[in-house]
Amino acid sequence: MTSAKSPVSRRGLLTGGALAAGGTLVGAVAVAAGRSEDTAATPAQVPVATVGEAIEPFHGVRQSGVATEPQAHAAFVAFTLRPGTDRAALGRMMRLLSDDAARLTQGRPALADTEPELGLLPARLTVTFGFGPGLFAAAGLDERRPPSVVDLPSFSIDRLQPRWSGGDLLVQICADDPITVAHAQRVLVKDSRPFATVRWVQQGFRRAAGAEPGRTQRNLFGQLDGTANPKPGGPLETAVWIPDGPDWLRDGTTLVLRRISMNLETWDLLGRTDREFSVGRRLDTGAPLTGAAEHDEPDFAAVGPDGLTVIPDFSHLTRAHVSDDRFRILRRPYNYDGVPAADGTADSGLIFASYQADITRQFLPIQQRLAERDLLNEWTTPIGSAVFAIPPGCPEGGWVGQQLLG
Amino acid sequence: MTSAKSPVSRRGLLTGGALAAGGTLVGAVAVAAGRSEDTAATPAQVPVATVGEAIEPFHGVRQSGVATEPQAHAAFVAFTLRPGTDRAALGRMMRLLSDDAARLTQGRPALADTEPELGLLPARLTVTFGFGPGLFAAAGLDERRPPSVVDLPSFSIDRLQPRWSGGDLLVQICADDPITVAHAQRVLVKDSRPFATVRWVQQGFRRAAGAEPGRTQRNLFGQLDGTANPKPGGPLETAVWIPDGPDWLRDGTTLVLRRISMNLETWDLLGRTDREFSVGRRLDTGAPLTGAAEHDEPDFAAVGPDGLTVIPDFSHLTRAHVSDDRFRILRRPYNYDGVPAADGTADSGLIFASYQADITRQFLPIQQRLAERDLLNEWTTPIGSAVFAIPPGCPEGGWVGQQLLG
Ligand code: HEM
Ligand code: HEM
Repeated sequence: MTSAKSPVSRRGLLTGGALAAGGTLVGAVAVAAGRSEDTAATPAQVPVATVGEAIEPFHGVRQSGVATEPQAHAAFVAFTLRPGTDRAALGRMMRLLSDDAARLTQGRPALADTEPELGLLPARLTVTFGFGPGLFAAAGLDERRPPSVVDLPSFSIDRLQPRWSGGDLLVQICADDPITVAHAQRVLVKDSRPFATVRWVQQGFRRAAGAEPGRTQRNLFGQLDGTANPKPGGPLETAVWIPDGPDWLRDGTTLVLRRISMNLETWDLLGRTDREFSVGRRLDTGAPLTGAAEHDEPDFAAVGPDGLTVIPDFSHLTRAHVSDDRFRILRRPYNYDGVPAADGTADSGLIFASYQADITRQFLPIQQRLAERDLLNEWTTPIGSAVFAIPPGCPEGGWVGQQLLG
Repeated sequence: MTSAKSPVSRRGLLTGGALAAGGTLVGAVAVAAGRSEDTAATPAQVPVATVGEAIEPFHGVRQSGVATEPQAHAAFVAFTLRPGTDRAALGRMMRLLSDDAARLTQGRPALADTEPELGLLPARLTVTFGFGPGLFAAAGLDERRPPSVVDLPSFSIDRLQPRWSGGDLLVQICADDPITVAHAQRVLVKDSRPFATVRWVQQGFRRAAGAEPGRTQRNLFGQLDGTANPKPGGPLETAVWIPDGPDWLRDGTTLVLRRISMNLETWDLLGRTDREFSVGRRLDTGAPLTGAAEHDEPDFAAVGPDGLTVIPDFSHLTRAHVSDDRFRILRRPYNYDGVPAADGTADSGLIFASYQADITRQFLPIQQRLAERDLLNEWTTPIGSAVFAIPPGCPEGGWVGQQLLG
């Protein structure tokens, strides 16, 4: 079929002039046509297995990717809005990106997807949008910005680098398959081009899907990381999701994203006992030093034969602990592991993502306590920081941010 | 138990002096002690599921990681030997790294593993060692270097960057879990420190384990990539593995590793028909343009109504095709996807790994034909290149390279 169909473009190809042959620019044409219909060729559906075909919802009262059981791979993409991207333009952008996300998350190629075959494996893909302070300003809607969505105060432990900090718009892409993440990132970055430039991208990973189902993940220090996270239901409802207020806030949340480098060089020189003291939990089981199993309640008052509390007062656990459910945070961190230096120094750490209804009331007190005194600070350094409002979800036919920008 | 056991180090921690307390340096002490026994604490084994606990052999006549069904994640780590790393030192290094690999691939922590819990999930980990030209020179064994293991001639299409090229020693780490890869990389880089510096690291991915079992992978152009690879058995035996010669070559192979950037910006402007012409296969099914199913034999002689061959003469398929089984290569590529530029330009491509018994007789003729004329060159650019001899495997108690260096 093919050779008869497009002799011109084929000749163009053979003489190296394919890009000049306007008629063959399917992708560009479709974009120019306002993306009003499925112009990209839709390939035959292929049979896939469980990891690949599992689907998370896109439409709903709340955005997916927050309470969603964390997927194995993530790309956090932060954008800077171009000058002139005003409220109306933001509306067009979010309509476009929401449409891309609605399709890709359900295993359908985006409109004018130029690699439609890569859009067929959802692998639990979620796309979550976050609005930074600059987006509210660009839209002329500063008064609607949740007051806690503002650059964090600086902490003495911070060594923040601009290349990992700030951002007007965040697109958080998570899936159990790395090709699915790469393709969604490509589509969303392309479609944001008229409106925004890429500020930074942070790619991270957790355990592969199916490698340790139901178990708490480990970070690159070897620690079980996530044990004391609020569980779906009670605490998640009250602590993570904004329960009331105007419809552009209700059922939304906020995200603090910190890039925290973990110094494996000095950590690796430390004995196991000292490591366990620094957090207050055992490395093997994740149990608190006062307990035997991972989910035993830590006993911060228990005292050992040396007269000191069994869980050190300056342990990460003691300093980070929050007993009032309403003030807890939902941690959803990803590991990063860049390229080591010539001398072997690792470039490892956490992309620490914390969701909470209110940054000032929930995240900041914890971060302040940790910055003041936390044994773990000896081996960890925040090198990036950004804050975003996560608007509520949207129904079918709607788009994320519509209540704010529409 | 903990507080009674190590009061000194605990006090040290509390006063910030932990690193000065020599007695707690478990890892360092074990290394200094010659790693003669399992000094690292062995954590309780944890229950894991299929993806995590699947194991590939380390010991054997041939190294794993070549004919092994490709895992989802890879890190290719190239080292430059330090001055003074001679044959004896190389022997010590390979003994050490082989021991690390033998343990980690079987789901056991390395000796003196400082994150032993991260060593418990093998996830089909393989560690494959390759010797670059510089290693043979450093060992004073130039005359034993397979003659084809030498920098490739330069091709007109090449835009090679030193940061992705060359290397005296290659450690290829593949597993279905990204944390397993990161941990193995950390252990092997640490243990190579006395002998070598890190020259470059290339991290890549394929489909997640279980996402599309049994199917050919797609690259970031959306193409099915791997269709015409030799199958285990016949062709693999004769084309990939060195069948005879001295025992430091027999059952070894060679690796050409090319980093090839794929220009998604211009590729995405191209129509589907032109894309299919450039390779000679359909994008959806992977079928040759003369066939209906992926594994149909391409008919390079078939002519269409326009009098041209249906599969263009300058298509990648026609130019790369090898009909004599003895001259085929085994491709085992990984995708890479770096951080896009501010304007959204993607940094995507292939870590193209090709294994063959003899580079000169098998790889070079194909690469030469492609460099001369291959429609795909319009959208792909080699930016890195390295060659390695992959020595045979080793039996239990032995180490990789022993026949050469021992
Ligand atoms: C690289 C940096 C960090 C590492 C390696 C780390 C590691 C850990 C570990 C191992 C635990 C115990 C297990 C668990 O419940 O997950 C934990 C708990 C916790 N961490 Fe972190 N953490 C880091 C940074 C932070 C930051 C920046 C915050 C917030 C500002 C934070 C807040 C918490 C909280 C709230 C808990 C639960 C405490 C409880 O109630 O039991 N962590 N962390
Ligand atoms: C980014 C660069 C490249 C891309 C995107 C690419 C893509 C493809 C695709 C889609 C196929 C058809 C399906 C298959 O059999 O796998 C193919 C086949 C093949 N490619 Fe490549 N390739 C690239 C570079 C290379 C290089 C550098 C070589 C060797 C020097 C090579 C050698 C081959 C061979 C031998 C075949 C099989 C041909 C046959 O006998 O049918 N490729 N490639």
